[in-house]
Amino acid sequence: MGEFDLIERFFKRPAQRADVGIGDDCAVWTPRSGHQLAFSADMLVEGRHFLSTVNPKFLGHKSLAVNLSDLAACGATPQAFLLSLSLPRADEAWLSGFSEGLFQLSELHGCELIGGDTTQGPLNIAITVMGDTPQGQSILRRGAQAGDDLYVSGHLGDARLALEAFQGNVSLPQAVFDSARRRMECPTPRVALGQALRGIANAMADISDGLLGDLGHILKASQVGAEIDTSAVIPLMQTGTLWSCPHDLALTCVLSGGDDYELVFCASPLAASQVQLAAKSSGTPVTRIGRVTDSQRLVLLGVGGLPITTSFQSFDHFA
Amino acid sequence: MGEFDLIERFFKRPAQRADVGIGDDCAVWTPRSGHQLAFSADMLVEGRHFLSTVNPKFLGHKSLAVNLSDLAACGATPQAFLLSLSLPRADEAWLSGFSEGLFQLSELHGCELIGGDTTQGPLNIAITVMGDTPQGQSILRRGAQAGDDLYVSGHLGDARLALEAFQGNVSLPQAVFDSARRRMECPTPRVALGQALRGIANAMADISDGLLGDLGHILKASQVGAEIDTSAVIPLMQTGTLWSCPHDLALTCVLSGGDDYELVFCASPLAASQVQLAAKSSGTPVTRIGRVTDSQRLVLLGVGGLPITTSFQSFDHFA
Repeated sequence: MGEFDLIERFFKRPAQRADVGIGDDCAVWTPRSGHQLAFSADMLVEGRHFLSTVNPKFLGHKSLAVNLSDLAACGATPQAFLLSLSLPRADEAWLSGFSEGLFQLSELHGCELIGGDTTQGPLNIAITVMGDTPQGQSILRRGAQAGDDLYVSGHLGDARLALEAFQGNVSLPQAVFDSARRRMECPTPRVALGQALRGIANAMADISDGLLGDLGHILKASQVGAEIDTSAVIPLMQTGTLWSCPHDLALTCVLSGGDDYELVFCASPLAASQVQLAAKSSGTPVTRIGRVTDSQRLVLLGVGGLPITTSFQSFDHFA
Repeated sequence: MGEFDLIERFFKRPAQRADVGIGDDCAVWTPRSGHQLAFSADMLVEGRHFLSTVNPKFLGHKSLAVNLSDLAACGATPQAFLLSLSLPRADEAWLSGFSEGLFQLSELHGCELIGGDTTQGPLNIAITVMGDTPQGQSILRRGAQAGDDLYVSGHLGDARLALEAFQGNVSLPQAVFDSARRRMECPTPRVALGQALRGIANAMADISDGLLGDLGHILKASQVGAEIDTSAVIPLMQTGTLWSCPHDLALTCVLSGGDDYELVFCASPLAASQVQLAAKSSGTPVTRIGRVTDSQRLVLLGVGGLPITTSFQSFDHFA
């Protein structure tokens, strides 16, 4: 199977919204008038972002999911993506599974594959995704205001728990491990919630490197601080896969576990009912975990509201 | 040096045309009204697309150049790009050279780096580039008409000659080798010519995999054939680095050498003077090398106009 056969067989589909899709030097796309475009790129490397044993269908899903999560964090509607793929060899079973997972998710979100590149080399998956929002309605990191409520979507820490189990640091019942592993390998980007929060959230980010780290990006960009109420976080430790874990491990997973692709966002207390409506309309639970302050610092409040110090770190590829 | 420091130090620059550049979950961009967007993605892998010994400044240049070449092939004006980079380690000297070559070319074309990703792994450079054209003016592969003249820009085969020398298949005088190597490592995308050919060229492609192969893509997409007059190709073998080579090697380099990033295009004979004006206005020589036919076949005409058979192949990563 040659390079062009491979593209034809596993990746080329008739153009839908695109004026020109796969098969020319460029894809051609007419943007919706009155809209801004949002772009994000993520690269997944074997051994770094995923294990070589991962189900290729999940990997296809996740490769796009992590990009859609960035669009969600800006409140953007997915439109199209480009896929660059470096493969050790043209393995038909792998390609079949990978493309199946990829296209299932892309079709769910109406996000069309319009181009890319295929080459031989160490396994590497690089996707660039494009979405749009009505002009001026992108939700950025820099809009948080002192006094805002602080929220997270869904539940946190499952992916980190799976990683701890893979690394032998914790032993889990099989059903819990399977569930945590599924969240790590096959995350759900919060696309509907992100769009529903347009005009409501003042600032938002997705949680790819850990809550504290990604919230830290919002705080830095907005030049504000925040207080997280650990008692408000406890319900997050009683959902998902964390309920059976020791408290300290569960807290670590929630506060600094990455790879869950939930959203962290800030909204005025006056918008509290709108936040709940957005959560309901998108079918995504949200939890208020603290508030934005003018302190320039990120503080964890323990039992009784007293600050506690932490050494939680977010993930850094070159640290 | 951590991941965020690395981005801050070598890649983050103030947003220019972008509403939001590097540093948020997404870049945000307002497209020009009345314009279509053109997208292309290329991935460069160490050992496959470049040697580990290549000057990182040239590599930074080439990584963007091959993408700009795709925009040129559609007649698009470069706008912005995203860079995903997998690096074995955060090598400051390498990053400094790479980013210098990258930004020199991006600034030359007003093509802004708006986002991307950085991770640790085997060296891999994945760029997605965006350009635009006035609505409906993209030049596609599928527009070639029987009777069109067939042209190439600049001169062909230098990069292939350098590769043959690297592989020890040919011995070259040092100055010739240096010149050929420079073309391979630091190609010039024909961006100005591509734009100048809007409304003139009926079909166009860039020559990344070899003239015959890339022309083949045009012919297939347009459901036409072509005749290449090898006597018209001979002037191309007397420019650049090929003048001192044996005839057969020079012909191989011209017809099936890849990596030159020249343009091959088709235009009506009635537009011949407009083609020459476009060449002049963009400072890029063009050579007429044959014509488009309704035969569905690609034929090489030898001395006296007789067809010759060839076994020239274009490059296929999985063949």
